[in-house]
Amino acid sequence: MAEMTAADVTTQRRRSRLHQYLYRVIFEADTPAGRAFDILLILAIVASVVAVMLDSVPRIRRAIGGWLSVAEWVFTILFSVEYLLRLYASPGRLRYARSFFGIIDLLALAPTYLSVLLPGGHYLLVVRVLRVLRVFRVLKLAKYVAEAELIVAALKASGRKIAVFLFAVLSIVVVVGSMIYLIEGDESGFISIPLSVYWAIVTLTTVGYGDISPQTPLGQTLAALIMILGYGLIAVPTGLVSMEISLALSRHQKRLCPACGTSESDPDAKFCRRCAADLHGTKKGA
Amino acid sequence: MAEMTAADVTTQRRRSRLHQYLYRVIFEADTPAGRAFDILLILAIVASVVAVMLDSVPRIRRAIGGWLSVAEWVFTILFSVEYLLRLYASPGRLRYARSFFGIIDLLALAPTYLSVLLPGGHYLLVVRVLRVLRVFRVLKLAKYVAEAELIVAALKASGRKIAVFLFAVLSIVVVVGSMIYLIEGDESGFISIPLSVYWAIVTLTTVGYGDISPQTPLGQTLAALIMILGYGLIAVPTGLVSMEISLALSRHQKRLCPACGTSESDPDAKFCRRCAADLHGTKKGA
Amino acid sequence: MAEMTAADVTTQRRRSRLHQYLYRVIFEADTPAGRAFDILLILAIVASVVAVMLDSVPRIRRAIGGWLSVAEWVFTILFSVEYLLRLYASPGRLRYARSFFGIIDLLALAPTYLSVLLPGGHYLLVVRVLRVLRVFRVLKLAKYVAEAELIVAALKASGRKIAVFLFAVLSIVVVVGSMIYLIEGDESGFISIPLSVYWAIVTLTTVGYGDISPQTPLGQTLAALIMILGYGLIAVPTGLVSMEISLALSRHQKRLCPACGTSESDPDAKFCRRCAADLHGTKKGA
Amino acid sequence: MAEMTAADVTTQRRRSRLHQYLYRVIFEADTPAGRAFDILLILAIVASVVAVMLDSVPRIRRAIGGWLSVAEWVFTILFSVEYLLRLYASPGRLRYARSFFGIIDLLALAPTYLSVLLPGGHYLLVVRVLRVLRVFRVLKLAKYVAEAELIVAALKASGRKIAVFLFAVLSIVVVVGSMIYLIEGDESGFISIPLSVYWAIVTLTTVGYGDISPQTPLGQTLAALIMILGYGLIAVPTGLVSMEISLALSRHQKRLCPACGTSESDPDAKFCRRCAADLHGTKKGA
Repeated sequence: MAEMTAADVTTQRRRSRLHQYLYRVIFEADTPAGRAFDILLILAIVASVVAVMLDSVPRIRRAIGGWLSVAEWVFTILFSVEYLLRLYASPGRLRYARSFFGIIDLLALAPTYLSVLLPGGHYLLVVRVLRVLRVFRVLKLAKYVAEAELIVAALKASGRKIAVFLFAVLSIVVVVGSMIYLIEGDESGFISIPLSVYWAIVTLTTVGYGDISPQTPLGQTLAALIMILGYGLIAVPTGLVSMEISLALSRHQKRLCPACGTSESDPDAKFCRRCAADLHGTKKGA
Repeated sequence: MAEMTAADVTTQRRRSRLHQYLYRVIFEADTPAGRAFDILLILAIVASVVAVMLDSVPRIRRAIGGWLSVAEWVFTILFSVEYLLRLYASPGRLRYARSFFGIIDLLALAPTYLSVLLPGGHYLLVVRVLRVLRVFRVLKLAKYVAEAELIVAALKASGRKIAVFLFAVLSIVVVVGSMIYLIEGDESGFISIPLSVYWAIVTLTTVGYGDISPQTPLGQTLAALIMILGYGLIAVPTGLVSMEISLALSRHQKRLCPACGTSESDPDAKFCRRCAADLHGTKKGA
Repeated sequence: MAEMTAADVTTQRRRSRLHQYLYRVIFEADTPAGRAFDILLILAIVASVVAVMLDSVPRIRRAIGGWLSVAEWVFTILFSVEYLLRLYASPGRLRYARSFFGIIDLLALAPTYLSVLLPGGHYLLVVRVLRVLRVFRVLKLAKYVAEAELIVAALKASGRKIAVFLFAVLSIVVVVGSMIYLIEGDESGFISIPLSVYWAIVTLTTVGYGDISPQTPLGQTLAALIMILGYGLIAVPTGLVSMEISLALSRHQKRLCPACGTSESDPDAKFCRRCAADLHGTKKGA
Repeated sequence: MAEMTAADVTTQRRRSRLHQYLYRVIFEADTPAGRAFDILLILAIVASVVAVMLDSVPRIRRAIGGWLSVAEWVFTILFSVEYLLRLYASPGRLRYARSFFGIIDLLALAPTYLSVLLPGGHYLLVVRVLRVLRVFRVLKLAKYVAEAELIVAALKASGRKIAVFLFAVLSIVVVVGSMIYLIEGDESGFISIPLSVYWAIVTLTTVGYGDISPQTPLGQTLAALIMILGYGLIAVPTGLVSMEISLALSRHQKRLCPACGTSESDPDAKFCRRCAADLHGTKKGA
C-alpha cells in the first residue's frame, strides 16, 4: 500500500513534471484530480463486474449479450491503459507489478485477452472460468478505504489463535463426520466420509442445508451434540477478535506527551500525568 | 426527536393555553394526559397493524373482511386527526412535517386514501402494495422508547467500520458466487452468477435454505470454506459493536467533579479522588 | 430462593427438632443428608422426564407402555409426598406455595392427577397436553446451581436494552414480511402476511428452514438484505450481554477494605489504597 | 502435556545417552532432529487420515482400494514402532501409557489390528467402526500447537458458567419440544417427543435443516419464539468466553516489578510506576 519510502520521494522529485503529476492523480487521492480519478475508476470497476454478472443470466444474455460483450472489451481496454499508466507512473515499476494490487490488476485483465488466444470448442468452459476471474477486479476497491486497517490489524493479531481454533474445528468435523458415516450409512445419504465431513461442517457452522440429514435416533443425537457444540464454539473466535479489536483501538487512541513522551490511554486526560504538559493537538486517533 | 429548542420554548410560552396544552399531551409524556395519549396511540397502532396482517389471511378475510375494512378506515381517520393536531400543536409546523416521524406518519396514512383514488381492476395489486406500507406505522413506536439511544449511538460510532466489513463480505460473496457458478453450473441449480451470489449470501450468513446446494466434491469444498469463513467472520461486527457499546456506556456513566473537573468512572466513588469534593448530584447517567 | 430471612431463622429455632431437621434436609444442601436428598431428587426428576419422553415414541409405548405408566404414578406419588413435606417444613408455608418453585412443583404434579379426573374420548388430547406439562419438572433442577446467578444478573441488567432490540427486530420482520408477501405472492408459498413474517423471522435469525423461500430476483435481493442484516444484528445483544457480564463480574470481584470500606477492583491489590489495611481474607468473589 | 517434573529430569540424567537422545527427539521439539521428527509425524498422521477418508468413497475404493489398504498397514506399522519408542523413551513408562495422548495413540492403532482378529461377514460393519476410529490420530496434532493453551484456559475458567448455560438450553428444548409435539402432532412429522426435542435443538441453534418444520399457525408462532430466543441466547456464551479470554490475556501480559512486586498491565511501561526499577527482562507474556 505504502508504495513510496522517503528515498523514493527524493528520486521522484527529480523526475519530470508529467511523471509527478500522473503519480499524484493515479496513486494518491488528496488532490481534486486524484479523487475524481479514483471515483471514476471505482464506478468503472463496479459497472464491469455488474456486466459480467448480467452476462451469466440466460434471459439477459439473449437480449443484450452483444452489448455486454462490447462493454467488456471497452472496460478491458480502459483498465489496460490504466495498468500501463500505473507501471509508468510508479517510482519503482517492478515494485508495483509485484505488489498485491499489481497482481490483482493483472489478473483482472488477463481473462478477456485469454478468451481470444484460446478459441475452439472444448476450451470454451475454461474461457468462462478465466472471464469470471475478472470479478477479482472488485477487490481493488478495498484499497480506497482506510478504516479497514483496524479490522485487519485485529485479525492479524488474533491470527495464530484463530488458526488453532480452525484446526480444532477441522479435527472435530473429521471425527464427527466419520462417526455419522458409520451410524447412518448410505441409506440416509451419507455415502462417503468426505461427504459426511461436509455435512458435519454444514451442521457445526449452523448453516443446515437439509440436503443430507440423519434419520436414525443415534445419528440425530450426534447431530444435536455437534449443533450445540457449534452454537457454543462461535464464542471463541468472537471473544478473541473482540479482545484484539479492543486492544487495537486502545493502542490507536493512545496519546504521547509532546514534552516527555509518556503514553496516556485515558481519553479524558488533558495534561501529562508526568510533566503536566498540555496533551491537546497531539491526539493520534480519530 | 428534540422538536423544541430554547428559542421555541420562549415562543411557545406566548401562545394560547390550548396550543400549549395540546403540545404537552401530544408531544410530551411527562403529564398523566400525555402518557395516556401515548399509550392509547401505541395500542391503536398495534391494532391497526394486526388488522392489516389478518386481512391478508384468505380464511380470515372471507370471514371478517368487511369488519377489517371498517377498522382500517376508522384507524386511518383517527390517525389523520392525530396528524393534523400534531401539525397544529408543533411549534414549527414544517419542522414536524419534515422530521423523520412526520414523514413516517404521513406514509402510514397515504395507502388507504390512495386505494380510493386509484380504483380499477389492474391497479388492485398496486393498491395492495400501498396498503401494506401502512405497517410502517409500527415504526412510530420506536420514538417512545428512550433506551434505544445507547444502541443507536454504538451502531453509529461503529458505522464506518461495519461499512468496511459489509463491503468485504460483498466482495467475498461476488467472487465465491462466480466461482461456484463455474464449478457447479446449471445442473445443480446455479443457473446464473446473481443467483449464485444469492446462494453465497445464504451460505456465508449461515442461513442455509437448501433450495440450491452444491453437488460436486469441488463445489462442496468451496461451500465448506465459505461456511467456516462466515462462521468465523461474525466475530468482526460482534467485536466492533461490543467495544462501541462498552465505550458508549462508560461515557454514559462517567461523572465530572463539580469542583476540579476530574472525570470519575467508578460508580461507587462518593468523593473526587483529587480534591475530595462531593460527587453526588452531578451524575450524568441514568 | 432465599426462603428464610433473619426473623424467620429466629422463629425456626424455637420449633421442634423434627421440623428443623426436615428443613435442613429438604431445603438446604450443606449436610450429608441434605446433599443426598438433593441428588436423589435430581435423579428422580430426570428419570420421570425421560419416562414421559419415551412414552411418546410409538414403538416404545407398544413395548413397555404399561411399565412407563406405572413409573409415572410412582414418581407422581413420590413428588406429591415431597411437596407436602416441603409445605410442612417451610417456615412460611404459604411463602413456599406462592414462590416460583412452589408453583413449578405443583404444575409438575397436576397433569397426572388431572388425567384421572378428566376421562372420556375427546378429552384425551387435553389430558396429553397436561401430561406433557410434567416436563416443567426439569426446571426444578435450576435451583441447585449457584453459578446461574451471574448470568441471570447480567441478563436482568441488560433486560431493557434487549427489549428495545427485540422490538426493533419485530418491527423489521413485520415490514420485511409484508414486503416479501407483495413481491412473491401465493405462487412461492407466501400465502399471507403472518406466514411471510414467520419466514422473515426464520431468515433474520439465520435458521433458514427452506420450506418457503423467495423465487423472484427482487424477493431474493430482499432476502439477501435481511440475511446480512440478521448476520450483523446479532452483534447487538452479544455486545450488550458481554458488557453486562463483564460489569457483573467486576462487581462480583470487588473487595471492600475491612478497615475503612473503600472498594478495590484491582485483583492484584494487597493493601487498601486509602488506609493501607491488609485486604486478604475479605475477598467476596469465588 | 508436562510429562517431566524436576525429579524426573534428575532420574533422566542418570540414564543412558541413547535413552536421553530418543527422549529429546520424540518428546521435545527444541532440537533440529526433534523438530524434523514432529513435522514428519504430523505429515504421516494427515496422510493416514486422508487415506481412510478416501477409502470410504466408493469410486476411489474401486480404483485404488488395494493401494490404500497397503498404505493403511504401512502407517499402522510406523505408528506402532513410534508407540513402542515412546513407551521406551518416556521416563515413566506407565505415565505415558496412561496419559491422554498415550491413550489416543493406542486408540489410533487398535482398529487396523482388530480388523485382522475379527474376520467374517457380519463383523465387517463393526470392523469399519473400529477402522474409522483411526481418525482420532488427527487429535495428536493438537499437542504441537502452543497457542491452544490460552483458549483452553479461557474455556476451563468459564466451564461452570457454560455448563449452567447448556443446562438451561437443554431445559428449554425439552419443554419446547414437548409443546410442539402436542401442537403439531404426527401429520407435520413430529412423531415423538425425542424427535421434537431434536427439532427444537435444530431450531434453537439456528441450524434449521427443514426436514421437519411446523405447519400450524400456533406451531409456527412457537417456532418463531424459540428462533428469536436462540438468536439472542448466543450472546451468553459469547459474553462469558469474551470476558474469560480477556482476563486470561491480561494475566498473561501482566509483569511484576523485580524490585517491589507492583504489577504492571500496560505493555508500554518501561519502568515500575512505584520505584522506577527497569521492567525489561521480566515480561511473562509472548
